[in-house]
Amino acid sequence: MRVLLVGAGGVGSAAVAIAARRTFFETMVVADHDPARAQRAVAGHGDRFVAAQVDAASANAVTALCREHRITHVLNAVDPRFVMPIFNGAFAAGADYLDMAMSLSHAETGVKLGDEQFALADTWSTAGRLALCGIGVEPGLSDVFARYAADELFSEIDEIGVRDGANLTVDGYDFAPSFSIWTTIEECLNPPVVWERDRGWFTTEPFSEPEVFHFPEGIGPVECVNVEHEEVLLIPRWVNARRVTFKYGLGDEFIEVLKTLHKLGLDAVSPVRVRGVEVSPRDVVAASLPDPATLGARMRGKTCAGTWVRGLGPDGRPREVYLYHVVDNEWSMREYGHQAVVWQTAVNPVVALELLATGAWAGVGVLGPEALPPMPFLDLLNGYGSPWGLQER
Amino acid sequence: MRVLLVGAGGVGSAAVAIAARRTFFETMVVADHDPARAQRAVAGHGDRFVAAQVDAASANAVTALCREHRITHVLNAVDPRFVMPIFNGAFAAGADYLDMAMSLSHAETGVKLGDEQFALADTWSTAGRLALCGIGVEPGLSDVFARYAADELFSEIDEIGVRDGANLTVDGYDFAPSFSIWTTIEECLNPPVVWERDRGWFTTEPFSEPEVFHFPEGIGPVECVNVEHEEVLLIPRWVNARRVTFKYGLGDEFIEVLKTLHKLGLDAVSPVRVRGVEVSPRDVVAASLPDPATLGARMRGKTCAGTWVRGLGPDGRPREVYLYHVVDNEWSMREYGHQAVVWQTAVNPVVALELLATGAWAGVGVLGPEALPPMPFLDLLNGYGSPWGLQER
Repeated sequence: MRVLLVGAGGVGSAAVAIAARRTFFETMVVADHDPARAQRAVAGHGDRFVAAQVDAASANAVTALCREHRITHVLNAVDPRFVMPIFNGAFAAGADYLDMAMSLSHAETGVKLGDEQFALADTWSTAGRLALCGIGVEPGLSDVFARYAADELFSEIDEIGVRDGANLTVDGYDFAPSFSIWTTIEECLNPPVVWERDRGWFTTEPFSEPEVFHFPEGIGPVECVNVEHEEVLLIPRWVNARRVTFKYGLGDEFIEVLKTLHKLGLDAVSPVRVRGVEVSPRDVVAASLPDPATLGARMRGKTCAGTWVRGLGPDGRPREVYLYHVVDNEWSMREYGHQAVVWQTAVNPVVALELLATGAWAGVGVLGPEALPPMPFLDLLNGYGSPWGLQER
Repeated sequence: MRVLLVGAGGVGSAAVAIAARRTFFETMVVADHDPARAQRAVAGHGDRFVAAQVDAASANAVTALCREHRITHVLNAVDPRFVMPIFNGAFAAGADYLDMAMSLSHAETGVKLGDEQFALADTWSTAGRLALCGIGVEPGLSDVFARYAADELFSEIDEIGVRDGANLTVDGYDFAPSFSIWTTIEECLNPPVVWERDRGWFTTEPFSEPEVFHFPEGIGPVECVNVEHEEVLLIPRWVNARRVTFKYGLGDEFIEVLKTLHKLGLDAVSPVRVRGVEVSPRDVVAASLPDPATLGARMRGKTCAGTWVRGLGPDGRPREVYLYHVVDNEWSMREYGHQAVVWQTAVNPVVALELLATGAWAGVGVLGPEALPPMPFLDLLNGYGSPWGLQER
């Protein structure tokens, strides 16, 4: 297996550190628009890793880099604006493709998350190529949990609700998001999508249906709200449930910040003209905040991703479980030198690549993680030293 | 009198419309960094007005433009970043100078609002030239009120508190400030300054000492907080009081927005690097919001500027008054085509120019409005059709 990792930001760099301990691949080319950032990501991890420069907005550039390095698998670790050029660039080079976020929605035209990718599913199938989409932690592990619940824990599912919460704090900053603010704005300010068997997909208002969810391992109660997220688009394609939701434990302060950014138009992606130059306000917001990848040493606490499922157990009696994965920042910093949120995202595509390398996972077309057997994934995640958990509720 | 007006934004354009009805000056050159904006400001106001282009950051450019048009008085109507080049450029050309905001403070070095200008007071005096600083509405009319209170209404003053509040709304926008957001951020996020006879000037935390102030003419109660403002620096130099404060009726929502901008570093003036270009986050905030000068037709309500004074009356008995000036947006739009907040700011320097033209006001050096006799100003303001009021409290 010869991997091209596009993006040497927080998640990409953590993926390098995780993959460096595994033997399943021959080479990993780490490409970024900033070659120095790619160099920093590979430094010290051995000669299987090669730094490169790439313009992720150019499918041709991605294809050329794949051909130059005889790439078999492209792992996309940049923000979702670049999904389509990387997805198309990998296909043109005859490589398989993995990402952690899907092509963007467009509320005005009714285009949903991932629609642009699923529109090309037949092309990928016919060519015998695999695009494994949404294989970070959420989407990703959360989808694997959903499939596991359907296969092993339930005879009938009423609701699958992905629930994400943390008790992370960052010393020395008034406000310092632990994940890409660009992506957080995108997913939180777009109309959240919900799926119901009788209605299909529909959207609600941002921050709708607040609920207090109790997270395990000492994180405790966090207010969660509906957010637009890939799981709601992926899970119903392969898993039978009456309702699928995603709620994110943003907390009051973060919600207020996002609402204010929206009120002021600072969430906008389209450029504004400022003293002779054109800039996207959202890019300026991201540039004004500390880089989440650099905050690990100042962070404290745990982050939890998971899938809550309610329905009937195999015995036909009511059952409610929360399948989850917790990462303690102190552990991920000590073990890998990467903060908890990016580490938790990055471990999953590395596990997936290893399953594809060994043949435990195989498929063609455009697939979500829940299209593939869950047990090999959950077992190998334990093998990476980062166990998942199950709570009966 | 031959006037150079620097800045054809909201306040500058309103000043043109107000001055166009007066005969006291011979010509007014209206200069902006954007020549089209200057053209729009003068269009339709007759051939005493001339549009020009100028870089307000260049004292040499201001001097050259003054010489070209034989300017006697420079009126600065751009944001306070440009006070010093315009102030120095006017002096070099032998012109008198007026502004509506003073040179900026620098908290780190203890430099206060206007310090850079007052440092040159002797130079202006010796040359026989006048810099009349802070002659908008606040500072400006508020300072004239303070001097009037001291001259006519009180034998002893305990506190002079400038209080500004409005009930303006803007149809069709979630959030649309009616005044320059650049200036609002500057004055609200800097440490507010307070003056006390026993302590001199000192600063407090942003948004400190909240109080509900009742504004006249139907505006009603508005929560006001301490804000850094020129009056606190100007009034104690010429008016005897025990304490001088400035509080601005920002309202909860605006305070929350300003705190969020600060939390995210989006109030910063220093540029950040964004995809290969350098921009000031605060400039991006301003560019993302609607231009306040264009909002008049969607605005409704009144704005009130004024000076509250507490002390002993001429008879030695306790007295408390609020001297104020209210502009109804419906009136200013109908009469002048300019929204209330910029109109209210702009009328005062035009009145001041007329007093200087007639000789009713005269002086040399760097002066605040309270250095000059208040009655001619207050009488002429009434003559402009925009009366002021006095409330005994």
